Amino acid sequence: MNKLLDNITSPEDLKKLNTDELTELCAEIRAFLIDNVSKTGGHLASNLGVVELTVALHAVFNVPDDKIIFDVGHQSYVHKILTGRKDSFGTLRQFGGISGFPKRSESECDVFNTGHSSTSVSAALGLARARDLDGGDSNIIAVFGDGALTGGMMYEAMNDAGHTKTPLILILNDNAMSISRNVGAVSAHLRKLRMSPIYFRSKVAVENFLKRIPLAGGAIVSVIKKVKRFFRRLVIPTTLFDDMGFTYMGPVDGHDIKSMIQCFEYVKGEKKPVFIHVQTKKGKGYAPAEANPRKFHGISPFDKETGETKNEGETYSSRFGSALVKLAEKNDRIIAITGAMPSGTGLEEFQKRFKNRFFDVGIAEQHGVTFAAGLAAGGYIPVIPLYSSFLQRAYDQTLHDVCLQNLHVVFPIDRAGIVGADGETHQGIYDISYLSHMPNMTILSPATFKQLEEMLDFAVNRFNAPVAIRYPRGGAEASDVPDGFTFGKAQLIKEGSDVTIIATGRMVKRAQEAAALAGMSVEIIALPTVKPLDEQAIIASAKKTRRVITIEDNVRTGGMGGMIASLFEEARIDCAFKILAVPDVPITHGSVDELDAMCGLDAVSVVSQIQELQTNG
Amino acid sequence: MNKLLDNITSPEDLKKLNTDELTELCAEIRAFLIDNVSKTGGHLASNLGVVELTVALHAVFNVPDDKIIFDVGHQSYVHKILTGRKDSFGTLRQFGGISGFPKRSESECDVFNTGHSSTSVSAALGLARARDLDGGDSNIIAVFGDGALTGGMMYEAMNDAGHTKTPLILILNDNAMSISRNVGAVSAHLRKLRMSPIYFRSKVAVENFLKRIPLAGGAIVSVIKKVKRFFRRLVIPTTLFDDMGFTYMGPVDGHDIKSMIQCFEYVKGEKKPVFIHVQTKKGKGYAPAEANPRKFHGISPFDKETGETKNEGETYSSRFGSALVKLAEKNDRIIAITGAMPSGTGLEEFQKRFKNRFFDVGIAEQHGVTFAAGLAAGGYIPVIPLYSSFLQRAYDQTLHDVCLQNLHVVFPIDRAGIVGADGETHQGIYDISYLSHMPNMTILSPATFKQLEEMLDFAVNRFNAPVAIRYPRGGAEASDVPDGFTFGKAQLIKEGSDVTIIATGRMVKRAQEAAALAGMSVEIIALPTVKPLDEQAIIASAKKTRRVITIEDNVRTGGMGGMIASLFEEARIDCAFKILAVPDVPITHGSVDELDAMCGLDAVSVVSQIQELQTNG
Repeated sequence: MNKLLDNITSPEDLKKLNTDELTELCAEIRAFLIDNVSKTGGHLASNLGVVELTVALHAVFNVPDDKIIFDVGHQSYVHKILTGRKDSFGTLRQFGGISGFPKRSESECDVFNTGHSSTSVSAALGLARARDLDGGDSNIIAVFGDGALTGGMMYEAMNDAGHTKTPLILILNDNAMSISRNVGAVSAHLRKLRMSPIYFRSKVAVENFLKRIPLAGGAIVSVIKKVKRFFRRLVIPTTLFDDMGFTYMGPVDGHDIKSMIQCFEYVKGEKKPVFIHVQTKKGKGYAPAEANPRKFHGISPFDKETGETKNEGETYSSRFGSALVKLAEKNDRIIAITGAMPSGTGLEEFQKRFKNRFFDVGIAEQHGVTFAAGLAAGGYIPVIPLYSSFLQRAYDQTLHDVCLQNLHVVFPIDRAGIVGADGETHQGIYDISYLSHMPNMTILSPATFKQLEEMLDFAVNRFNAPVAIRYPRGGAEASDVPDGFTFGKAQLIKEGSDVTIIATGRMVKRAQEAAALAGMSVEIIALPTVKPLDEQAIIASAKKTRRVITIEDNVRTGGMGGMIASLFEEARIDCAFKILAVPDVPITHGSVDELDAMCGLDAVSVVSQIQELQTNG
Repeated sequence: MNKLLDNITSPEDLKKLNTDELTELCAEIRAFLIDNVSKTGGHLASNLGVVELTVALHAVFNVPDDKIIFDVGHQSYVHKILTGRKDSFGTLRQFGGISGFPKRSESECDVFNTGHSSTSVSAALGLARARDLDGGDSNIIAVFGDGALTGGMMYEAMNDAGHTKTPLILILNDNAMSISRNVGAVSAHLRKLRMSPIYFRSKVAVENFLKRIPLAGGAIVSVIKKVKRFFRRLVIPTTLFDDMGFTYMGPVDGHDIKSMIQCFEYVKGEKKPVFIHVQTKKGKGYAPAEANPRKFHGISPFDKETGETKNEGETYSSRFGSALVKLAEKNDRIIAITGAMPSGTGLEEFQKRFKNRFFDVGIAEQHGVTFAAGLAAGGYIPVIPLYSSFLQRAYDQTLHDVCLQNLHVVFPIDRAGIVGADGETHQGIYDISYLSHMPNMTILSPATFKQLEEMLDFAVNRFNAPVAIRYPRGGAEASDVPDGFTFGKAQLIKEGSDVTIIATGRMVKRAQEAAALAGMSVEIIALPTVKPLDEQAIIASAKKTRRVITIEDNVRTGGMGGMIASLFEEARIDCAFKILAVPDVPITHGSVDELDAMCGLDAVSVVSQIQELQTNG
């Protein structure tokens, strides 16, 4: 059925096809993508947008000698299909299958793992300078979206790259969106460039004309150089990227194979850093995705014909969003800040209802957190929900600008713990470890939706210091959790006498599952407040049962279990003790249940640990 | 003697002085600065550079209603002197005295604490939007150096600020240096602007002329607007900052009080974000500092007449630098990367000797670390020495780009532990906690110069994964440390039978001091490898003495002591146990000895803990 695609075993095969065949191939790839991602779920819209771009790249450049780095990397599906992973594409994002992001371990054509935004130019510059030191001449290409340009790292890298002559090809895949509609001054600048009538072809024409003017020796040279510069400036407007030392070309139509091939051939082997502005449409070629690119950014399995997904029901994100709206109705000091994710973090309703108290800072977590600190210093109550793995990017701002000043900033941490299919770059398994040692920081973690709402009310209205509330992706809730959150207090979820399980967040439910299977008298203590610890309640239970298991969906080192171990060891609590946590290794992709089991955090593993403690304790 | 300065009790007093008097006042302030800092030490050169700028700011704006945020904040001395802290200025950076950085706790004129670079625009935007929501009309001003513009956060903030009409005044204090000479494309752009003949006066003239063209109603308006835009573009070249949505003005002579006052009066109350480019000279007015601004950036007490400081002798930084040069002579894969600190980190010799293997990325730790990851992926061995409190800024890049890919990047961590006079924003007391939970990360910490050299050789030549080597500011060395670093192995420094002290890095020396005073048989175990722990050696000693004290110059939570507590608790080692570490609160400025004592890390405190363990254990 895929008469062209089925014969592509490596990018070399692309080079034998003519433009019409490449266009036909793109249609086949689109159908292949829609068919597969409708079954596996994944990042569809962004990949539909880069079909022609990726095909054109591989038609011109030679991987793995030439190196392509995909920023964020969720748009690397076409690249994967063309570089030997078509047949395993049905395993995308499944446990043991191929990753939804570039992975060096999968293919030599994946030269640098990505997952978080705005890293590609830094990595590309590293590879480019390594090539220069080796005396090589390969092309190093970074492909990034306009959303990535809201991240400061890109400017750090362009600032470094733009003043040297290191050959480097930056390709801006401009679809006028990051995950949501794009924001900011640079976005406005790009809009201006997109509307500019000057296409790269005119640049090529001017450059070719200028090249034909001979450079004689002596004084005449400088005059001619000046004339050239004058002509260039006349025809080609200066862009932000020119100011940063790059030769800007574009915009190029990112769905026109021929234009792109012409452009890439032109810059191939260039001895300077170039910046190519490619315009694409997110979701291109699949009507439901074109109509709703945000929904099809990252999507669970869906009906190919209608684009419908199963309703996933309420989640911690959605409950957070509705709770914040209710609080904001009564408290006009509440501000919501998002890092380009109003939808993912549940802020869409807030955005509509409280337009002047809502700020989307772009994919700019560092700025977002310090901006929040500024608002707090100005007397407001900023609430900045971020995914756990993205708050990492503002570690220093959280510590230096919020915690050291003890400012009242509320950090709802979404996607905390094991996140599943997005895999190792997106696991939210470090936040207890990276927040618990920050001075003045409080960490809360709900086991139910209701508890999240209680905590948010507390954090906003009855607290006056930095506070994080971590909650998982999805909607797993524990049962029989008493109402009424009390700051700093543990909750007795179930009384028992043989062994104590101390659990937090989503793991309270796991503790309950294990207790039901364990065949002995299990006491369950939940810690809605992870820091500070309720030392008294924890010690009392340990003294009673003499066997303690701690369980958390955070890495072992620096986590909740470690804090309890320090407490016990110094207080000389003699008990059998076991920390259950995510091991300190990268955690791959798969379902949450599969990954829990792999980490020993499923009910069966917990039960076997309980039994071992009973035998040896 | 200071006939003008002595009469300045608040910035209001400045407003009564004429230009000549203000110029005279600046001379008095300079003399006052040189006199005081020669005794206390501190950041002299940058403050000498901003005397006129700060005086002009306070002559025009009204703090604390108007709000000035000093980026980094080490250039806030003049501001402090003018806002009520002249009489306490002799206590600068001393324990219990005033801080060398802005502190909200010191004065209502310090509106936001700073210390790390490139945060000011984010904080200012937060304060500005809080003002807008309050319906206020105060001026919010961020003052930052050209070095800060190499940090990506600035672009994140400008991107956010530049597309709204939020009034905001950015002042670039351009001295063509960060700490060392500045690098990068933006720096080149500034150089171009500095050489441009168009001063803000011409802009003012054009704007005044344009303002006089009346705006009639109807179609004529749009024509006039276009004409205005044309005139503006003709006279005023577009800058990077215009592209980001700011109205650029400058360059203004930063030592010409009159020009600056004129400029600030012009933008005061403007209803849009403006960007003022001020040119200053670092060290201005003090010959030794003008001649060597790098030396006088942050300086210990010096001789006012000659500018000479006491030779501080060898330090871990200098030994690191010379060791790396020796290694690089034999291994041509070694690359050195600095974040604007070739001098502070000891890389000056490397920079001279191996020009093409040395890269200064600017104050851009995020980019620096991912750039290093790219070099490692390209087959080189990047070594990126950063101060502990600055590596924090690349937390995510270290985890996401280096550790998850298990790339061979070497992180020498300078200024780890208590740093002293720079105070809370610069303490290097978090690195064990923020690195130990990263997968694939190894943490080493030497107790002597020799050990640092051995570790560096190991990390570069005999290891192939991410590795951090943390060492303190200055040159404190333990004695009697056996030669020959063995990865993963503890070192028995002193045998004993009553109590075990487990120490790392600089704290090995403290353990030795305590053992000498303790009056009992103390065993000292040093951990040159902090992660992974030498579990066997630690457990063996604990079983022997039954009393264990751990000591580290890192915060308690998530530190070495916590890792050992987890080990003991799970292995059910019954012993009296105490973690000595930096408490989880902001740690102020003072001498290292004073702060050690405050944290209970001095020899006397350790002895009293030993005695308590013996009594109760």
